[in-house]
Amino acid sequence: MRYRMDISYKGTRYHGWQSQHNATGVQDVLEEKMQLLLRSNVRVTASGRTDTGVHALQQTVHFDIDGALPPDFIYHLNNVLPYDISVLDCVTVADSFHARFDALERSYIYKIAQRKQPFLHEQVYFFYPPLDIEAMNTAASFLLGTHDFTSFSRVKTDVSHFRCNVTSAYWEKKEPFLFFNVSANRFLRGMVRALVGTMLWVGTGKIQPEHMLEIMGSEDRRNAGPAAPPEGLYLKKILYPET
Amino acid sequence: MRYRMDISYKGTRYHGWQSQHNATGVQDVLEEKMQLLLRSNVRVTASGRTDTGVHALQQTVHFDIDGALPPDFIYHLNNVLPYDISVLDCVTVADSFHARFDALERSYIYKIAQRKQPFLHEQVYFFYPPLDIEAMNTAASFLLGTHDFTSFSRVKTDVSHFRCNVTSAYWEKKEPFLFFNVSANRFLRGMVRALVGTMLWVGTGKIQPEHMLEIMGSEDRRNAGPAAPPEGLYLKKILYPET
Repeated sequence: MRYRMDISYKGTRYHGWQSQHNATGVQDVLEEKMQLLLRSNVRVTASGRTDTGVHALQQTVHFDIDGALPPDFIYHLNNVLPYDISVLDCVTVADSFHARFDALERSYIYKIAQRKQPFLHEQVYFFYPPLDIEAMNTAASFLLGTHDFTSFSRVKTDVSHFRCNVTSAYWEKKEPFLFFNVSANRFLRGMVRALVGTMLWVGTGKIQPEHMLEIMGSEDRRNAGPAAPPEGLYLKKILYPET
Repeated sequence: MRYRMDISYKGTRYHGWQSQHNATGVQDVLEEKMQLLLRSNVRVTASGRTDTGVHALQQTVHFDIDGALPPDFIYHLNNVLPYDISVLDCVTVADSFHARFDALERSYIYKIAQRKQPFLHEQVYFFYPPLDIEAMNTAASFLLGTHDFTSFSRVKTDVSHFRCNVTSAYWEKKEPFLFFNVSANRFLRGMVRALVGTMLWVGTGKIQPEHMLEIMGSEDRRNAGPAAPPEGLYLKKILYPET
């Protein structure tokens, strides 16, 4: 039986989704606790990875088990999972469903706070200089459509090409916060954080919005801004075909 | 020169507002950092204390210094204060202003989450059994007006009487949260948490709403429910006369 499960996590304590070397990933903790409850060597496949310190409001995974889940599985799994990982939902799906390959669109949100927030430590990027949100939205508009995003990808990455189709990209201001919302069919490693770091150059007047196009066209990571820190980044939603 | 300062803090790491024995209170940290910047032995007087682990969305203090504050004082103070204490505002006031004695009304909010929230660890009380909010609101309505709240006060406390005038008390549901809002001219030690703990008895059907009146009338702390945990409690606002 194949299941789709949606989870949420605060990424601060984890070395990303997938374990690296001896560091713990969210996936390791999830699988360990599922194996504890299901008494089988279950493995999960996610829509994609998230980096160290990056959060997920909604991450989707699938997994296979023999037969049905035990009663109140979500409740019991949430009980044994640590405070920073939560199961939102778990439903049966067709055997053909694949959390990674079926995903039509991924959405991220990047949260910036322009004032100190005692309750949002590790959950936003604190950035106090004034920002020109109009200029940042002009820069964001250049991202829409299919482009080569080599300039905003980590150099060490294992992909066959760097083209992404960005379907939505805009900044919104909700005093004292700025949120960058972005959706695409796929994202390259470190892409959202490199985009945000570059648009912060735009917002502080270091470069003009149109410069975004030049940076993109150069296909060279060294021309883009520094990666914005991981604590502001949230995987927000994965879109799948209606079934 | 007398100043009024409004601050916010996440209480988790502190032993309440005021230092006890060798434990650090929010006040200690605030005064230490102010003394660092002002190079004088400044002391602050708050509207009232908060207990260990209790938060403040807005706590008001006053203090006196010779002359004016240095430029960008709020900015610099926020820079040297730890992440979980934030200065919201700081303005000059009349020499007669007193953060504690002038306060007309204090407001608290108590936050309950009925589902796991990875991003609200230590910031809400996680309580999963179903709750009858209508019954809880009936119980809350009995609190309005001036009553003796001995039944909801810690036994070890240093006050001349236990009467409080409750001006507002109601529960609101914002899935998956329940918020208890309460305002009064004064609160006794542990009062909001004892009220919440007792109303959780009402919400789970352990006692009837009308039982609240009996408990209050008994003037005996042993008849009320257990104190709800501190992580759900926030000092929300202090009301002062318009000047």
